Amino acid sequence: MITLHHLNNSRSQRILWLLEELGLEYGIKQYQRDPVTSSAPESLKAIHPLGKSPVITDGDLTIAESGAIIEYLLDSYDTEKRLRSTKGQALLDYRYWLHFAEGSLMPLLVMKLVMMKMPKNPMPFFVKTIAKALSNKVQEMFISPRLTPQIELVENTLANRTWLTGEELSAADIQMSFPLQASATRMDLSAFPNIARYLKQIDALPAYQKAVERGGKLDTL
Amino acid sequence: MITLHHLNNSRSQRILWLLEELGLEYGIKQYQRDPVTSSAPESLKAIHPLGKSPVITDGDLTIAESGAIIEYLLDSYDTEKRLRSTKGQALLDYRYWLHFAEGSLMPLLVMKLVMMKMPKNPMPFFVKTIAKALSNKVQEMFISPRLTPQIELVENTLANRTWLTGEELSAADIQMSFPLQASATRMDLSAFPNIARYLKQIDALPAYQKAVERGGKLDTL
Repeated sequence: MITLHHLNNSRSQRILWLLEELGLEYGIKQYQRDPVTSSAPESLKAIHPLGKSPVITDGDLTIAESGAIIEYLLDSYDTEKRLRSTKGQALLDYRYWLHFAEGSLMPLLVMKLVMMKMPKNPMPFFVKTIAKALSNKVQEMFISPRLTPQIELVENTLANRTWLTGEELSAADIQMSFPLQASATRMDLSAFPNIARYLKQIDALPAYQKAVERGGKLDTL
Repeated sequence: MITLHHLNNSRSQRILWLLEELGLEYGIKQYQRDPVTSSAPESLKAIHPLGKSPVITDGDLTIAESGAIIEYLLDSYDTEKRLRSTKGQALLDYRYWLHFAEGSLMPLLVMKLVMMKMPKNPMPFFVKTIAKALSNKVQEMFISPRLTPQIELVENTLANRTWLTGEELSAADIQMSFPLQASATRMDLSAFPNIARYLKQIDALPAYQKAVERGGKLDTL
């Protein structure tokens, strides 16, 4: 029996979606972020030493890291190989986006959020002014020159196809959903209509809607 | 014919190591970071739109993202399945560390480096004082509480085994080498003797030494 240890408003939403997409029976154990710090609760550390979500248990196995969980669930339960091609360019594309999501895109979005929050703590006015300037400088010098080409690459890819690996949904789309949803809350995506269309496509999927029903709607990513 | 587009002092070092470990014939095209900004040169964008390294070409194929390159090279050329288990806990462990390296550990190390550099730009003394305080605050509140348990997890894993997935080297060790080498330059690892031993093990491997010979020694990570 699979159990998903699910933290509200987290990367775990996509594992919930994958479980629904595969039509699996599973249990869900809910964890709530600290309302002040947004941290995951200590109780998650009983499941895996890093205390992060997503993490799943399946019988005796405990599996963490979104990408590794996705690979495990596909190996074990995607018997029709619907969500991961087994060869050719589609397999290469699947792997690229699977790794790109957390290896390239998400780190910049996390850093951007930390920088956006840095000047928001209580501090004297003149310190806040400097904090804002430093935050802008880091975003302008380090984050934006890397983030913009990445968003453009996603946009250009989606100009030619319905989903990231072709005309059918793959688990790479599930992995990419969270950073793209997070992007939409942290930057102006009005120049990227294909990403907007893609996010609406996701919202319309029955399995995604079930995931939202069970896990809660994502906000303040 | 495989060509590795290799940037000095980068994640690409481990792909070079993997190519040597697999005993493959390959070409190497060298790219140099800008000595002032440390950025990759524009010429890398001709190979892949993000202009990042590593990226390989193999015949008509262009493959980016370290984890995806590793999976591709193992699928195509690790015919004896020496560097990736095909089943059981060793496969799960391989996948965990493959994704953990860039999905969890490396983003924190990049953010730490950006924060360490933030107060080092030319600025008036009182601004520098505030920049240092803000950098320390981000490290103390966000980075360290996440980074320390991750380093501890690696240390504890290596207390029980020679390599991260067991007694034999796997490609997950190659993927993990760069963030651990980067950790050693950005934090005090004296309390983590197993990681120190592990990094020495890597340095002693003939294939790793050949990679250093061809790609240059890593420094100022």
